Amino acid sequence: MKKMVLSLLVDNTAGVLSRVSGLFSRRGYNIDSLSVGVTENPKFSRMTVAVSGDDRILSQIKKQLLKLEDVISITELKDGESVCRELILVKVKTTLEERQQIISLADVFRAKVVDVSKESVMIEITGNISKVEAFITLLDGFAIEEMVRTGLTGLTRGNVISE
Amino acid sequence: MKKMVLSLLVDNTAGVLSRVSGLFSRRGYNIDSLSVGVTENPKFSRMTVAVSGDDRILSQIKKQLLKLEDVISITELKDGESVCRELILVKVKTTLEERQQIISLADVFRAKVVDVSKESVMIEITGNISKVEAFITLLDGFAIEEMVRTGLTGLTRGNVISE
Repeated sequence: MKKMVLSLLVDNTAGVLSRVSGLFSRRGYNIDSLSVGVTENPKFSRMTVAVSGDDRILSQIKKQLLKLEDVISITELKDGESVCRELILVKVKTTLEERQQIISLADVFRAKVVDVSKESVMIEITGNISKVEAFITLLDGFAIEEMVRTGLTGLTRGNVISE
Repeated sequence: MKKMVLSLLVDNTAGVLSRVSGLFSRRGYNIDSLSVGVTENPKFSRMTVAVSGDDRILSQIKKQLLKLEDVISITELKDGESVCRELILVKVKTTLEERQQIISLADVFRAKVVDVSKESVMIEITGNISKVEAFITLLDGFAIEEMVRTGLTGLTRGNVISE
């Protein structure tokens, strides 16, 4: 199983999300995450879809997506050639002592404490998938009350400056 | 037209996204943004949907969504009671002079420069909707080459400590 992140430029119409997600579910393709929002041009939306599968399935997905009328272009966001980021909010139940531990952990990851209450702390963390997953793994010993992830989003890099 | 941000806890099944987005498109409800990813429990996904409409439409949307079998619960993320965040990546075409201006602008907003090439700069910015929109507005004079937004995501706050 490989993972692939696709960036789709699509028409900003009411039905486009339903058609794209319908294609995935009808064929049983598994979506790891999906995010969609408007772009620099309000006529278009950009959809970022993270999917897993073998090579055959991944190449089929690309072909099928391109057949949809609303899909204008597809870019595969490859490691090294692109910047991929995810935003996560996580609310952790804490005692007074644990709170300080979690805040220190957040500091190390340059994560932000965005809410504190008597019984919980909420942390915002942004980064590439490995940073974000490492942080979640470190929270393992604590009681995660709620967590929400935007899913990966990304853009291809500009040309790297050659020295 | 009001804006509403809904946080849906749903079963992590292949068809759930297609059913939720199908409901919106069939009824002509407009989705401003949507993001979906796994939660602290891999059996469930959390979906954050930003929608606009009048009071009648917004209350209809909530009712219809609750009728779907995969939808376990819906929380409206209201201002003040919740933390809502969005992540944006924006690639701006720049001359050498403009590059410094954009980097300074990013500094003011505590945004990060995540890629630099001869002809472009890529900025990552995270924040609530007003911060993110303010930053985009300030980029107005520059040539935005590509922009991608995760859409809003959020969690309700813990109980605020009473002094």
